[in-house]
Amino acid sequence: MMADKARTTKLLKTARGQLDGILKMVEDDRYCIDISQQLMATEAMLNKINKEILTAHLKHCVSNAQTQAERDEKIDELVAMLGKIMK
Amino acid sequence: MMADKARTTKLLKTARGQLDGILKMVEDDRYCIDISQQLMATEAMLNKINKEILTAHLKHCVSNAQTQAERDEKIDELVAMLGKIMK
Amino acid sequence: MMADKARTTKLLKTARGQLDGILKMVEDDRYCIDISQQLMATEAMLNKINKEILTAHLKHCVSNAQTQAERDEKIDELVAMLGKIMK
Amino acid sequence: MMADKARTTKLLKTARGQLDGILKMVEDDRYCIDISQQLMATEAMLNKINKEILTAHLKHCVSNAQTQAERDEKIDELVAMLGKIMK
Repeated sequence: MMADKARTTKLLKTARGQLDGILKMVEDDRYCIDISQQLMATEAMLNKINKEILTAHLKHCVSNAQTQAERDEKIDELVAMLGKIMK
Repeated sequence: MMADKARTTKLLKTARGQLDGILKMVEDDRYCIDISQQLMATEAMLNKINKEILTAHLKHCVSNAQTQAERDEKIDELVAMLGKIMK
Repeated sequence: MMADKARTTKLLKTARGQLDGILKMVEDDRYCIDISQQLMATEAMLNKINKEILTAHLKHCVSNAQTQAERDEKIDELVAMLGKIMK
Repeated sequence: MMADKARTTKLLKTARGQLDGILKMVEDDRYCIDISQQLMATEAMLNKINKEILTAHLKHCVSNAQTQAERDEKIDELVAMLGKIMK
């Protein structure tokens, strides 16, 4: 992975902490809407991490592909990824 | 929360397991695109949990609101939630 | 429809004007990325209109449902709608 | 634009036809939920067109960039586009 490893790990651990908090909220029978909001905050955090990983991927892996064959492989991966993101 | 507690807890633990897997992938320097796909799978799982929670909320909390004041409060919450979901 | 009719019509006509502009861009062989940006702007406009329509629906149709049967029907519609929005 | 021009134009005209239908629905005071569903169908159509345009862009413009400078410019554009798509 080309994104900053320490930063990605830190953000992922934050997301895991949020999930632990949500598990606790469910156990404590907290209000649906409050749980829903925390879930959306965690989804937003994962989306942010994913955006950083894909940005680093474009700037390094794709930019540094040396041969046309390598570049075409990276582009096929991006097309597949786009299909998932824009589902 | 009105959604099934055991099921919600189980799904949340699955999502946490996915996050632990992603943390390991980052540590092992796995390929960006593979990490990105796992992140999207986890986001999809959280979205699914959130949909179940909001569906149960509509079917119980909103449906069972007794007075007009209670109903209007639930509706204000739904409007706020809609604003976040459709951002 | 409970949303303001004049305003909704005006926003829909703006979106149609954007679409006409995009059709012209395609005809003029404009750059992919510029066309893509205009498409996203039009999608954002439709999303905004939809949010206003659903908000007005919640505040009027759902809030004013008189009987439990009526309310349950509205809630079933909202659940179906949520499934589409959070797909 | 590198996507098939005839096909893109045809799909855009379909979306414009959908919008005209929605304007008529608003005028005829049709039910909120029905209008909302048509709006989402039109958004889905625009999203589909956008995906096709970006896919063709990746497969042609990005793949055929000759120099490193050209490739880096394309990649900067993709990063900016990703930021909008994954907002």
